[in-house]
Amino acid sequence: MRGTVLYGPRDIRFEDCEIPKIIEPTDAVIRIAATCVCGSDLWPYRGLQPINGPTPMGHEYCGFIEEVGSAVKSVKPGQFVVGSFATSDNTCPHCQYGYQSSCAHREWISTAQAPRLRVPLADGTLVATPGVPSEELVPSILTTSDVLGTGWFASDAANVKPGSTVAVVGDGAVGLLGILSAKQMGAERIIAMSRHQARQKLAREFGATDIVTERSDEGVAHIKELTKGIGADSVLECVGTQESMLQAIRATRPGGFVSYVGVPHAVELNGEQLFFTHVHLHGGPAPVRRYLPELIDLVWNGKINPGKVFDLILPLDQVAEGYRAMDERRAIKTLLRP
Amino acid sequence: MRGTVLYGPRDIRFEDCEIPKIIEPTDAVIRIAATCVCGSDLWPYRGLQPINGPTPMGHEYCGFIEEVGSAVKSVKPGQFVVGSFATSDNTCPHCQYGYQSSCAHREWISTAQAPRLRVPLADGTLVATPGVPSEELVPSILTTSDVLGTGWFASDAANVKPGSTVAVVGDGAVGLLGILSAKQMGAERIIAMSRHQARQKLAREFGATDIVTERSDEGVAHIKELTKGIGADSVLECVGTQESMLQAIRATRPGGFVSYVGVPHAVELNGEQLFFTHVHLHGGPAPVRRYLPELIDLVWNGKINPGKVFDLILPLDQVAEGYRAMDERRAIKTLLRP
Repeated sequence: MRGTVLYGPRDIRFEDCEIPKIIEPTDAVIRIAATCVCGSDLWPYRGLQPINGPTPMGHEYCGFIEEVGSAVKSVKPGQFVVGSFATSDNTCPHCQYGYQSSCAHREWISTAQAPRLRVPLADGTLVATPGVPSEELVPSILTTSDVLGTGWFASDAANVKPGSTVAVVGDGAVGLLGILSAKQMGAERIIAMSRHQARQKLAREFGATDIVTERSDEGVAHIKELTKGIGADSVLECVGTQESMLQAIRATRPGGFVSYVGVPHAVELNGEQLFFTHVHLHGGPAPVRRYLPELIDLVWNGKINPGKVFDLILPLDQVAEGYRAMDERRAIKTLLRP
Repeated sequence: MRGTVLYGPRDIRFEDCEIPKIIEPTDAVIRIAATCVCGSDLWPYRGLQPINGPTPMGHEYCGFIEEVGSAVKSVKPGQFVVGSFATSDNTCPHCQYGYQSSCAHREWISTAQAPRLRVPLADGTLVATPGVPSEELVPSILTTSDVLGTGWFASDAANVKPGSTVAVVGDGAVGLLGILSAKQMGAERIIAMSRHQARQKLAREFGATDIVTERSDEGVAHIKELTKGIGADSVLECVGTQESMLQAIRATRPGGFVSYVGVPHAVELNGEQLFFTHVHLHGGPAPVRRYLPELIDLVWNGKINPGKVFDLILPLDQVAEGYRAMDERRAIKTLLRP
């Protein structure tokens, strides 16, 4: 088969590779129905995160179980499943506390932009959908694998509650689904920081009540102005740069909550400055597995339509164009179909 | 009258200064019954925090109201009161959220190591005790003004709950009262990090179940070992250095809670490292005013005896010796009586 490999900055190739097979008795092999390009894939794509030689890509996936190892009990061939980008046994203490993305046996999925995928720890990682989803439902089901799960975690980690005033830093797919998540959790006011018209439109569709186009000092000042000088109760940091992190922290009221869900790049937080802001800070790789059953249910029953973040759908062999379009901000998020 | 002034590293003087009087109608003037030296006073005392010329010292206090401004309604002359080191109107939005130490009208108390003290925003800052405390009760009442309130916040901000496994980094008075607080909040296991015998003894008396004497990598490894490799649910960082902060973060389980309550000195947190620890982080200047009624009640009714942290009691005019004893770790905390 052929799979996606990053060779260097902006050098994505779709090339021959080995067909995955069962290695451990706890593995499953999936025939991918849909995969996609993640905002985090753009860091190495842009050369902003080093790679060690040719690197297979992709960690968001859904599809049909083709084969399972002898120890797998909870899923079986033919079922349609979704899994997290982080594998988990779902039984270790960290998993039991709901932090499956810090599972003691965690592995990172990294070869999902391909027609087939090996998933270790299948029992603790994969969740079957109630049936085979319709074509129209597949994009939304796919989002539960990472981008929705991450937006959901952003909102949860920022303590969004009914009535909350929320600000979202970042108008990528995670930020947009952070808005959808905050809306689902009952936020009364959701301020989206975006200067991109198509994204502003989707933000409003997902539940944003206000748009702030300014950044940095002006962006913080605008949020303060919108909140009577108090600051937001919850701020979702969905970018991962020093500027976005400080913007999030400074836009939060004392005692408020900041979540951060994208791997921070060159971010350093000064302890003394953080101290006097009085914010709560929580983040990390989203424990998607914790949320999968609930999110699949919301999608399956048509309560939410997160698949709208995919504004470009390409055959998998055009994956290079999928990266280009996101890199150039022509697309919010690219869905790939084998 | 004479008050305490820091002139430079290890140069504390008790010298003539003006008697405080009412300036704003919301002020009160207190005749100090007891004051003390704070761990945070040692930073400038040791020259590790710059001062701009001679600096009056002291921010922990209790005593009798002598005079109140025309607008003060909740306390009156003759009452015995305690207040926080941070003044608060107790009505602004930040106060209403329980973050009185970030009050929109906050001022820092900084002249309390003296016989008399002006307290701005008296109505929102001071809390009267049920009556005049006995001599024996005064030290414990005094702790509610800062050191107990700060230890209590450390435990609260680290989400200590019945059954929690807690670790406390720092065996100063705040750390020791963090142990007492965690015990009150129902912690099942409390690991004190200390290599000082007298402090270990008090830690055990306050509720510590385990003592870890190692620091850094070895200290973290020992806590992991005591928690079956998982890490603590809650870690109270009560020192404020880079080493103590990283030790606290690394000793916490993924999804666990780290609080930090001493002003961090030269602490820089790497965003990416913090991200993968999955900890919750919360701290800042303790909102003591939030806790004062509850803490005064616990002390008044003899439920807790936090005054035990004072192992040196001196007349106020020997304040310089009080600082020396703490600097040289001959004393845990010095109480001063005018």
